[in-house]
Amino acid sequence: MPTLISPRARSRSDQDWPGYRLLVRAPLRLDCGIDFGPFTIAYQTYGTLSPDRSNAILVCHALTGDQYAADPHPLTGKPGWWETMVGPGRVLDTERYFLICPNVLGGCMGTTGPQDIDPASGAPWALSFPVITIRDMVRAQKLLLDHLGIDSLFCVIGGSMGAMQVLEWAASYPDSVFAAVPIAGAARHSAQNIAFHEVGRQAIMADPDWCGGRYLSLDRKPVRGLAVARMAAHITYLSEAALHRKFGRNLQDRLAVTYGFDADFQVESYLRHQGSTFVDRFDANSYLYITRAMDYFDLAAEHGGSLAGAFEGTRSRFCIISFTSDWLFPTPESRQIVHALNAAAANVSFVEIATDNGHDAFLLHEPELFETLRGFLNGCAEHRGLARSK
Amino acid sequence: MPTLISPRARSRSDQDWPGYRLLVRAPLRLDCGIDFGPFTIAYQTYGTLSPDRSNAILVCHALTGDQYAADPHPLTGKPGWWETMVGPGRVLDTERYFLICPNVLGGCMGTTGPQDIDPASGAPWALSFPVITIRDMVRAQKLLLDHLGIDSLFCVIGGSMGAMQVLEWAASYPDSVFAAVPIAGAARHSAQNIAFHEVGRQAIMADPDWCGGRYLSLDRKPVRGLAVARMAAHITYLSEAALHRKFGRNLQDRLAVTYGFDADFQVESYLRHQGSTFVDRFDANSYLYITRAMDYFDLAAEHGGSLAGAFEGTRSRFCIISFTSDWLFPTPESRQIVHALNAAAANVSFVEIATDNGHDAFLLHEPELFETLRGFLNGCAEHRGLARSK
Repeated sequence: MPTLISPRARSRSDQDWPGYRLLVRAPLRLDCGIDFGPFTIAYQTYGTLSPDRSNAILVCHALTGDQYAADPHPLTGKPGWWETMVGPGRVLDTERYFLICPNVLGGCMGTTGPQDIDPASGAPWALSFPVITIRDMVRAQKLLLDHLGIDSLFCVIGGSMGAMQVLEWAASYPDSVFAAVPIAGAARHSAQNIAFHEVGRQAIMADPDWCGGRYLSLDRKPVRGLAVARMAAHITYLSEAALHRKFGRNLQDRLAVTYGFDADFQVESYLRHQGSTFVDRFDANSYLYITRAMDYFDLAAEHGGSLAGAFEGTRSRFCIISFTSDWLFPTPESRQIVHALNAAAANVSFVEIATDNGHDAFLLHEPELFETLRGFLNGCAEHRGLARSK
Repeated sequence: MPTLISPRARSRSDQDWPGYRLLVRAPLRLDCGIDFGPFTIAYQTYGTLSPDRSNAILVCHALTGDQYAADPHPLTGKPGWWETMVGPGRVLDTERYFLICPNVLGGCMGTTGPQDIDPASGAPWALSFPVITIRDMVRAQKLLLDHLGIDSLFCVIGGSMGAMQVLEWAASYPDSVFAAVPIAGAARHSAQNIAFHEVGRQAIMADPDWCGGRYLSLDRKPVRGLAVARMAAHITYLSEAALHRKFGRNLQDRLAVTYGFDADFQVESYLRHQGSTFVDRFDANSYLYITRAMDYFDLAAEHGGSLAGAFEGTRSRFCIISFTSDWLFPTPESRQIVHALNAAAANVSFVEIATDNGHDAFLLHEPELFETLRGFLNGCAEHRGLARSK
């Protein structure tokens, strides 16, 4: 039986971080065949669960996200990654809905991941942590919801890797998902995206401070490799137009180029900053494991090669969203999901939002995104018989 | 006065490599303000210079290219990088034209670069090598052509960074350029491209074997960092469609994923191969210097902010070529050049070639590219009064 640990419980990786912890004692059978556990799920909640438990929304985070969707990040102090979306009166209205946002399995913000202690060895798991999949993450989330007594989610929502989890939820637990909103996602990771992830992993593994993954035991940290991985990935989150608009060829605090390898250009300075701040809040091995989970994601392959088969007989309502300038998860990837849902005679809306913000648009102020989601959620709430927003 | 060193002359970096070497004794004033020299230019020629010296074509190579456009590479044994284009009866017909292909200043295949010996210290230049620009590369090439007694080039042609050199030639020495063919290029390096270059440089500099650039003196080599830089760059040379067509999510010599960090996917294996073979033929510091030269390239800025101004009064004939699936130097970059040339009332053709081969298309078998170039060059040859191909 799962056991709830009170907020502010301690573990190696979550010293005094706020939030809830669920200790799952019974082992979880992972896709790799390993029975894994006990393990901890760290999560945040926002809003109040209605007496009939009908207003729960599961928020699934992206690769480098965490459970702090709408709280300051305990390490950086920065606002939650979905503050634009979550709060009283916002699209994910905390006066109407009860939001649950768990850190994914393999993560580094409290849910068990490679930086935590392997009870068998007494040392951090490092590379002896089992390779997990998006389906494993979702299985762990299902245990959390079972524990919370929520049989049916009003909605599962997420962007990027969050969208993968949304799709996996809809496919694995169709009766538990009233509405599903995968934003800027795909039903399988593309060759180009696997390639970019592999570059990031090679950058980390090339860092001698990675030490074959055992850096924590050796009191080292592959910060340079992890920063390079983040820099490469960060370019893919933006559009060329946004980079041009924000930085162009503008110089950083200088009037002319210096004929050297300093960050002459603002875009260089910005990228270096992205790399160097990331290493303060993220674990390098978690980065390896979570990118691998995304690479492995192929929903059709889990269902005999048919994506429509993954959604057969579904009664969930889907809202699929993509962004015109997203070249990491471009619109055709979303369209493929829509086609499969149509083939499964599912209830599906599809919106491609015009923006130059690239993949990161799902995290930013995008009025058309907000409006689309508000409309979709209101419609679903009406069908579900939820009370109106105050 | 420049002095010709006979083929097979020796230097630190070109042991027994075939080809010509020109020793330039008089210093060259670089954009950074340094008077640089003496230095060596390594180059290959193909075909025969006509008695009136009217059939010379300068071939400008890309970032990781070299002078071996149509000879086996002396280190890898692989065919020359433009074998598809150069040879008897080919587009750059060696029975009709006299081709000159020099290694760029800052390179690592015989032309003086950071791996060569700084006479002042007796050690490799490393980071004391001056930061060079595309214009500096072109100035050095001009000295080579002066030495060869070629006042007027029939054509200057190149792809990617080669296209930048072509544009610089047309702007700096308009009277020496009868025809100019920049393929898959741009008149200035975009923010996104600077960002990708910066990732590569940071990967190299993060490698402890880089040793602040002094790795050659210390008998070390930043192979891991350079491989990561190459892997990241290589993704940008291909299109997503080509990656999908070539690799998709195919597994490498296995029937199922291994739940590990081996190269499960063919695209990972391919990328790792690209990284590991690159380090055998390329110098890490040269990679830093040449990417920097590309970042700094901004032809309009060299001409008071007006790209049209760069081409004012030109009588050269231009053929601008881009590829539909090239997202590194996308068509709008070429279109910008065309607009500037039109504003300067230049003679310009523009062709966007439909292909899914991405930026690398200029190196591949592209029938429409060949046909376009053949037509353009034949037309120019007629105007120039060159003898017909046999």
